[in-house]
Amino acid sequence: MPSYTAPVEDMMFLFEKLRDNKNYNELEKYKEVSPDLVKDILDQAAKINQNLILPLAKAGDENPAILENGVVRTPPGYKEAYQKYIEDGWTSLSCDPKYGGQGMPRTVSAFFDEMISSASLAFKLYSELTLGAYNCIHHHATDEIKDKYLPKMVEGRWSGTMCLTEPVCGTDLGLLKTKAVEQPNGTYKITGQKIFITSGDHDLTENIIHLVIARTTDAPKGTKGISLFLVPKFIVKDDGTIGSRNGISTGSIETKMGIKGSATCVLNFDEAAGIMIGPKNKGLSQMFTMMNLERIVVGIQGLGISEIAYQNSLSYAKERKQGKSNNNSQNGNADLIIEHADIRKTLLNMKSIIEGERALCFWLSQQTEVSLNHNDQKIKQEASDMVSLMTPVVKSLFSDLGMEITSDAMQIFGGYGYTKDQGIEQFYRDNRITPIYEGTNSVQAADLVFRKLSNKNGNIINKFLDTVRSETNSNNEKVKPFIDDFNHYLNILKKFSEWTIERIENKKDDVSAAANDYLKTLGYVSLAFSWIKVLNVSFKDYQENKKFYEDKINTAKFYFDKVLPRAEQHYKSAISGSSNIMNFKFN
Amino acid sequence: MPSYTAPVEDMMFLFEKLRDNKNYNELEKYKEVSPDLVKDILDQAAKINQNLILPLAKAGDENPAILENGVVRTPPGYKEAYQKYIEDGWTSLSCDPKYGGQGMPRTVSAFFDEMISSASLAFKLYSELTLGAYNCIHHHATDEIKDKYLPKMVEGRWSGTMCLTEPVCGTDLGLLKTKAVEQPNGTYKITGQKIFITSGDHDLTENIIHLVIARTTDAPKGTKGISLFLVPKFIVKDDGTIGSRNGISTGSIETKMGIKGSATCVLNFDEAAGIMIGPKNKGLSQMFTMMNLERIVVGIQGLGISEIAYQNSLSYAKERKQGKSNNNSQNGNADLIIEHADIRKTLLNMKSIIEGERALCFWLSQQTEVSLNHNDQKIKQEASDMVSLMTPVVKSLFSDLGMEITSDAMQIFGGYGYTKDQGIEQFYRDNRITPIYEGTNSVQAADLVFRKLSNKNGNIINKFLDTVRSETNSNNEKVKPFIDDFNHYLNILKKFSEWTIERIENKKDDVSAAANDYLKTLGYVSLAFSWIKVLNVSFKDYQENKKFYEDKINTAKFYFDKVLPRAEQHYKSAISGSSNIMNFKFN
Repeated sequence: MPSYTAPVEDMMFLFEKLRDNKNYNELEKYKEVSPDLVKDILDQAAKINQNLILPLAKAGDENPAILENGVVRTPPGYKEAYQKYIEDGWTSLSCDPKYGGQGMPRTVSAFFDEMISSASLAFKLYSELTLGAYNCIHHHATDEIKDKYLPKMVEGRWSGTMCLTEPVCGTDLGLLKTKAVEQPNGTYKITGQKIFITSGDHDLTENIIHLVIARTTDAPKGTKGISLFLVPKFIVKDDGTIGSRNGISTGSIETKMGIKGSATCVLNFDEAAGIMIGPKNKGLSQMFTMMNLERIVVGIQGLGISEIAYQNSLSYAKERKQGKSNNNSQNGNADLIIEHADIRKTLLNMKSIIEGERALCFWLSQQTEVSLNHNDQKIKQEASDMVSLMTPVVKSLFSDLGMEITSDAMQIFGGYGYTKDQGIEQFYRDNRITPIYEGTNSVQAADLVFRKLSNKNGNIINKFLDTVRSETNSNNEKVKPFIDDFNHYLNILKKFSEWTIERIENKKDDVSAAANDYLKTLGYVSLAFSWIKVLNVSFKDYQENKKFYEDKINTAKFYFDKVLPRAEQHYKSAISGSSNIMNFKFN
Repeated sequence: MPSYTAPVEDMMFLFEKLRDNKNYNELEKYKEVSPDLVKDILDQAAKINQNLILPLAKAGDENPAILENGVVRTPPGYKEAYQKYIEDGWTSLSCDPKYGGQGMPRTVSAFFDEMISSASLAFKLYSELTLGAYNCIHHHATDEIKDKYLPKMVEGRWSGTMCLTEPVCGTDLGLLKTKAVEQPNGTYKITGQKIFITSGDHDLTENIIHLVIARTTDAPKGTKGISLFLVPKFIVKDDGTIGSRNGISTGSIETKMGIKGSATCVLNFDEAAGIMIGPKNKGLSQMFTMMNLERIVVGIQGLGISEIAYQNSLSYAKERKQGKSNNNSQNGNADLIIEHADIRKTLLNMKSIIEGERALCFWLSQQTEVSLNHNDQKIKQEASDMVSLMTPVVKSLFSDLGMEITSDAMQIFGGYGYTKDQGIEQFYRDNRITPIYEGTNSVQAADLVFRKLSNKNGNIINKFLDTVRSETNSNNEKVKPFIDDFNHYLNILKKFSEWTIERIENKKDDVSAAANDYLKTLGYVSLAFSWIKVLNVSFKDYQENKKFYEDKINTAKFYFDKVLPRAEQHYKSAISGSSNIMNFKFN
């Protein structure tokens, strides 16, 4: 079975040295979140993930969630682990203290998201959507509803889902068919079928609070006629206790390539009682409150699985002897494979991506908190624009690179990597959902180029480039060579951005065809941006912790030498346009 | 279940229009292999693969091979299909007529290899290794042994294996421990454990002929002390009939990520009777006769799985409506996803790679036949050098791009691609073995840079570049722009080759660290080379078949615009060297 040690040192490095967003540091509500407190939390988090949750990964893969007489059963051990998990308060980490939460910022909870993604993504999903539903209700529902539903969700005794997809409508929610019929008392009866519902049913919680999008009988066509409803599995009585079963049944659960411990359900709503959340016909934008935060978490899932894949590859490379390296140290006998240049390169590739991602994510967590909590509306809006811009990048880049890293991990294990015994191929299968769910990576890329580069607040990508330039500015002579290299790619990104924006009005197909490439270029430059920030600290504080900073500097160097060059070919490939693609006659 | 239509038209295009190797065309033995005969064979091949073998893919995935009381049982339906398969003579296609074969050249049999890889890789493997063993015995054994063993193998009534890997020795065969003790009658008793033996045991054939590498008691250490032995599952009596069971038992079979219908065995040899093949201590080079041809076939496996993944993605894209394209033709309703620019781009990416690979493989098949059969030793050697050079490229590039293509197929299917129902994720899992077995792709890359670029016959890569230049030479004005573009990348390949060769003596780690990048650059340039050859014909014969050649020209254009630029970043990434990688201190 794979092993895992939570990267607490790297996380604490970020929390202590890169918590540099002035606006974030002004937020009153997080003033007391000290490094000592965070260290305590991360140490506890490491323990539960390493000891309790990690074994669930294999258990869930070998004994998937099943549907038995209409009831979903989670894999062996999930129930007991979940009980401990909520007793220790992990579902409440980032939630509002008003409803029983611990009020931790994303700068802390994102680390937890990463750890539990490393330990078991399938198990994580049972509480992850609860948090999504919590955020949505917290943001859009009335106080009455919040008081009634949120405390139990924060506690983890009730869980949540987001019910969007239908058989003919995944990416395109305008095709939605589920109906909501208003009742004399102002509630609704919901009827329709939802598919691919993560944790749509299971045996871990007393109740499940579904957030469902549907059309009222008088709704306009398309995405402008979608409203949001809270539909509990069991009706919640006025006193907050659980009443009768609502009209929701589980039609089937999916047999999937990976995350087999997670129940992916077909849910049939048959006149199920629901309450409208927020204004009528505004359901999609409300759902997106939840979706956007969720998309960042999907990126973090990719990061988490990458980390555990890296750790196990590294251990194996230090144990497995095979072939003579160029500097054979074993008197003609086989060396450890970690002495082979190409294995070292693969490991550093993983490490440079993973640590760059973690740093970028930490930067984004600060922006997210500013976007949600700052008092100055202008600052709040600017942060929100940055978060919007980076959401599809983090979701897609981290999930795609998670595939590269888990695949490379299999290669390091050779034939053993392809067998089930080692648990390595499971990383690959589990991570393979991340480029698909919460909007495929192509949908993310389209979202990025068409909606995020510029908006009513102006040219967002230029603001990002300005931010990047000012945050990477350094007089340190040792950072300069990196910045020179970085500027070359920043310039490519700038040209690529201009090329894209110019075409948004009149050459949309060029933009669509280039979208994935653009996302990659922006992503690789963003990781380089994070590395420059890390380098600034590493050179400045070098004497404090030589070994640690030496490691950072060399990993950054690898990133600039070996990974960042990828950004350029995406540009070159993209700007050849789309006319040939659009005119092509497929047989 | 996925569907499949064998791409006979494209194969016949290659056979008719690109069979342009002068030396190949001089081979007496293939003079009668006419296009009409080949068309007949391919039509028959298409039928058996589409109708009989395709359904075995899902059957094998759902009901993997099992080990039951020491006996391996293949999945339901395999036995009946295999019987029909050998009755129709498909195992004998490329074999020597002297032993009952049909004597078809690789220019034909490679097409069959592709088709059956599309239909069911797991099923294919039961006969594939037979052919490998056949080739090895045919090349190295005495006439007596050939007469005794080959006819039954050609007929498919007996199968073959190659037994190399042991628990501590995969890539590095110098670590081999299996012992061969000579008996008074000149035979050997073989004792040891072999792992990852494809088709090591099964219930499809009357006998299994294992080719086993082992050490005699007086063997020198390392790879210079390895001999090759023929070790049958059942002893073959002098009259050719089957006698008693030999000392070989199946310890276990692997539970794998994919190709579940194929039995991957741990074989225990316990004083099993064996016959030495070829001279003592030369076993490794004899085994490599088989391995090298086998490695090309692994590349073809990647091509075959890519083809079926492409076909099913294309069909789905023409059925599935989702979202409005930029040129919405449905009055505001959702378009077919094939109208979306990014989906079209993904499909063309697949198509341009697949057809380029097929053409490259056809070029290589001609070279292979020349290397095996030409009367002029110099011509034979030159062809052999080309085959040696391209073997690791075809094996690695096609298998890696197979991962890209099967992954993109899943993305096109969205959430449905991740479920088992559609059969799409199985392509991905089945293909995932191809970058690993027959030597991981990193081993291939090391083989390429250290052993294939130059050898005792001189600078092979320069000869390849000369061949490429002369074969792509064209006065056609329409091909010129492609050639101009091509020359840019050819120049990069040239510089990259020089950079590599300069460092082989004194900067080996730079070469090792760059090996995968070098292989990719050479691979992408080689596909471009094939496309130029296709373009020459397409423009020349345009009027003969406008629709077909229009399609080729536009697909080539896509390749040059969108795919070939990848070659450059590999160069840029690689030449930063390896000192940072080698000095890095991994925790």
